[in-house]
Amino acid sequence: MKILISNDDSIYSNGIKCLVEIAKKFGDVIVVAPNKPQSAKGHSISLTEPLRLKRKELFGPDVEAYACSGTPVDCVKLALDIVYDELPDLCLSGINHGSNASVNVIYSGTMGAAMEATMHGIPAIGFSDVNYDEKGDLAVCKMYAPIIIEQFLKFEKTKHRLINVNFPSIDVEEVMGIKICRQSMDVWKEKFVEREDPHGGKYYWLTGQFQSQDLGADTDVHAIKNGYVSVVPVKYDLTAHEDIAYLNKEWNINEKVG
Amino acid sequence: MKILISNDDSIYSNGIKCLVEIAKKFGDVIVVAPNKPQSAKGHSISLTEPLRLKRKELFGPDVEAYACSGTPVDCVKLALDIVYDELPDLCLSGINHGSNASVNVIYSGTMGAAMEATMHGIPAIGFSDVNYDEKGDLAVCKMYAPIIIEQFLKFEKTKHRLINVNFPSIDVEEVMGIKICRQSMDVWKEKFVEREDPHGGKYYWLTGQFQSQDLGADTDVHAIKNGYVSVVPVKYDLTAHEDIAYLNKEWNINEKVG
Repeated sequence: MKILISNDDSIYSNGIKCLVEIAKKFGDVIVVAPNKPQSAKGHSISLTEPLRLKRKELFGPDVEAYACSGTPVDCVKLALDIVYDELPDLCLSGINHGSNASVNVIYSGTMGAAMEATMHGIPAIGFSDVNYDEKGDLAVCKMYAPIIIEQFLKFEKTKHRLINVNFPSIDVEEVMGIKICRQSMDVWKEKFVEREDPHGGKYYWLTGQFQSQDLGADTDVHAIKNGYVSVVPVKYDLTAHEDIAYLNKEWNINEKVG
Repeated sequence: MKILISNDDSIYSNGIKCLVEIAKKFGDVIVVAPNKPQSAKGHSISLTEPLRLKRKELFGPDVEAYACSGTPVDCVKLALDIVYDELPDLCLSGINHGSNASVNVIYSGTMGAAMEATMHGIPAIGFSDVNYDEKGDLAVCKMYAPIIIEQFLKFEKTKHRLINVNFPSIDVEEVMGIKICRQSMDVWKEKFVEREDPHGGKYYWLTGQFQSQDLGADTDVHAIKNGYVSVVPVKYDLTAHEDIAYLNKEWNINEKVG
């Protein structure tokens, strides 16, 4: 099995190193990952800047690895067009340092990379450790990621399958198990910090606070809080299908104007 | 009514100027838009670079306008935290030069800005003209955008409402009407162009070809091709709800390991 690995914390992160070790047991690994941190780059791609790929020896002689100057989605696109001759069988993204549960999935470069693979028909998993500390021991990931990959490979859906996995930041003995969840619907309330440069010009740093709005017991946030590894099946059809009938009925617009 | 306008083609684009003129008839407009093109930035935000806001007089004395150094989503976040005292009633994004139908919605900075507003509870519309020519006359937009805004304001859903509107590139007399659609599920196949710099280093330019895969007659791509203005209701819950029951049944993982 051919496995593509990417992430958004950069090819030098602890999380991707851990994921490569786990993935090696499942197949032949190629890594194409950003050469610098690309957190919160979502599904961004580089239309106006050229991209560079640099071969790296970071994961031992049996793992082909490339540092890429672009976003996580650029990495996957370059991997599929330039690095691989034919499409890989699986894409793994992460392990991200920090939660991609709830609406974080929308901002996440880790999930952007995984979703891009899925759009090309490659099954993909995004892994995140809720602990933002890049020096964390990732013991929960090491224990549970292989179990999830094994189950995922048996997932007989369409080929456009994608899951968002988040590991709780607790001791491995305290983990309650794995839970299938829906994405929690919360919001980041931003609070910009205003500064002044030496020339008197104002500038702003983005900071924010995560505000829980979704009290459901079936969400990823709820699962993680209760000691579970959360698994959310994800899709890239953003249509609010439930609104189509309403709009067709209420909007008298399906006719030519004038 | 307080209306926030943003886009991804930059505050200097023809499309945003057209949208401001349309929006003025509906309420008080404030513009916060990128100071340079930010196409395909998706839902990307700036965590590691400070942001600048610069007051501009581009749309007449009655429109407060700011050029922002960040992404479209940064623009909306800055608008909500720094520019507005209380949340605006509506966010309009665009008019984008180029299609945001089908999977383009996932890469689009225009739709990223609109979606960010929706996440804060602000109803939002993303407008795109399928014509990539920035000098186009936007006659179809001028005719149909006001009709859509009027209908949208009557849309009694939850407050998290969002639509993706695409205008066909045809003469206004040829437009067949407005159609409620689902997002077409297609794919961009990339084809990187390889170049060599003067020092012998390789670099790559991202180019791609849009490949139709979805033959449904209810898609936005189909509607546009047949002369309709397409309207897709959009949501930011990416859960594949239809897979949850399957995963719960087939995966024996809801238990503690070890």
